[in-house]
Amino acid sequence: MPAAHLLAALAGAYPADAVFFAVVDPGVGGRRGALVVELGDQHFVGPDNGLFSILWQRARQRRCWRIAWRPERLSSSFHGRDLFAPVAAALAKARVPRDWLAPKARPAVLLPAADLAQVIYIDHYGNAVTGLRFTHGKGTLRVGRRVLRYARTFEEAGGPFWYANSLGLVEIAAPRGSAARELGLTIGSAVKLD
Amino acid sequence: MPAAHLLAALAGAYPADAVFFAVVDPGVGGRRGALVVELGDQHFVGPDNGLFSILWQRARQRRCWRIAWRPERLSSSFHGRDLFAPVAAALAKARVPRDWLAPKARPAVLLPAADLAQVIYIDHYGNAVTGLRFTHGKGTLRVGRRVLRYARTFEEAGGPFWYANSLGLVEIAAPRGSAARELGLTIGSAVKLD
Amino acid sequence: MPAAHLLAALAGAYPADAVFFAVVDPGVGGRRGALVVELGDQHFVGPDNGLFSILWQRARQRRCWRIAWRPERLSSSFHGRDLFAPVAAALAKARVPRDWLAPKARPAVLLPAADLAQVIYIDHYGNAVTGLRFTHGKGTLRVGRRVLRYARTFEEAGGPFWYANSLGLVEIAAPRGSAARELGLTIGSAVKLD
Repeated sequence: MPAAHLLAALAGAYPADAVFFAVVDPGVGGRRGALVVELGDQHFVGPDNGLFSILWQRARQRRCWRIAWRPERLSSSFHGRDLFAPVAAALAKARVPRDWLAPKARPAVLLPAADLAQVIYIDHYGNAVTGLRFTHGKGTLRVGRRVLRYARTFEEAGGPFWYANSLGLVEIAAPRGSAARELGLTIGSAVKLD
Repeated sequence: MPAAHLLAALAGAYPADAVFFAVVDPGVGGRRGALVVELGDQHFVGPDNGLFSILWQRARQRRCWRIAWRPERLSSSFHGRDLFAPVAAALAKARVPRDWLAPKARPAVLLPAADLAQVIYIDHYGNAVTGLRFTHGKGTLRVGRRVLRYARTFEEAGGPFWYANSLGLVEIAAPRGSAARELGLTIGSAVKLD
Repeated sequence: MPAAHLLAALAGAYPADAVFFAVVDPGVGGRRGALVVELGDQHFVGPDNGLFSILWQRARQRRCWRIAWRPERLSSSFHGRDLFAPVAAALAKARVPRDWLAPKARPAVLLPAADLAQVIYIDHYGNAVTGLRFTHGKGTLRVGRRVLRYARTFEEAGGPFWYANSLGLVEIAAPRGSAARELGLTIGSAVKLD
């Protein structure tokens, strides 16, 4: 699940005591659970479908609760508004009623913890973020039949290239162009760092 | 006017004393009037072109004013910024100068009050909201030559389906796909609930 | 650089003491400098690549500094977040540490000061803003092989037309349609006002 890897990279750029309210929730209204996860001093509120599970598996200090509370009016398609937002707001105010949360050992859905060798996000400009963290050196990156070189900045690159983005992830870009369009990338496109 | 039906569905989700500043305003700079409408404790500021008229006709407690004030600098293409925003801000602060508003019996333009059997909004994911309120049971929905069944959640549906969205409107969706693209829907596409 | 002309038109609509934090920054992480510019009582923070240079050349009261400060963690692709935002925040609080800024005579990059006879921005609706200020009368506007007439409002126009937009720039629009699509306009399309 690309969003789980993206959130794992983003969380570090937020304050140490941030409350995250995150919903990628195709199972909304169905049987998937509802979670609060505490990782260090940050809290995450959302569906129990793996979204927080990359962060969970990387964390040292971690706690987990099931959301037991149900609002008076709960739509079947928008738990973000009806269920998760009120819980996140209560957490942000540090005023969660005692019976809203029930302790839980861990999230029910845990995605594979390894870096995801895929495109996980494409921004407005066509830059393609991958689920690979920049810890493997500055080798070449294979994308379909293309082989991309590393460059530190857009200015240094002559054409499509890869670099370590500001979140610490491997990202594919094309100076003054759209890497996604030039290379035919979509969310899920496989990449390989050599 | 699709926006009038959308606004009518959205308003209920806002606080009881909210001030709405809404502009769908193709006649900006022309002869259409400028309105403030009070419905219950909510206020609406914008053009007198029907935008508030669905809400008006459904309301029990209602009042209407013409905006008599004109700002020093009034562009002919952006009354949202120049005219309506200052009035909305003054309403939100409960400090509207006495001579800014003149009583008026009702909006000049009143659209037909019945539910609108059309697509009125298509969101980022391709879900298509209709102007039908969910008060007619769970029959089938006709869209062009397609007949869609009701499902409560995305999980329960096998393909394109309709459901009651979180605003209480009939909405067409496709699990993990774009209903608008799969069914060729645009704003104004006719639907029929059987 | 279209953005420099757009910013020049937008700045006047902001408060007299506004702090602008603006980044169109293809040279991020490279050799281009980092600026603070004071024009009247407004401040502008961003790259020294011409972005503020149209404003600079039109201003009477003006001062310029180089940003000497570097944050502990400076990514090579997101100076907006790492470098410019903290400086803009400090300016907005009027608490810039003494050694963060070093006086500088003028921006290093100064774009031609004349109005830009091109499309500089296309909005969501397909309206095309040009870099021409509305000070040349209400003649015809040439765009490719088309010749457009002036109209004061969308209502008065029968088809694609030009008008003086709410920022004081010449803008091309099509009533209830997309001028950009109908006329094949993109950023940089040349226009000529006769």
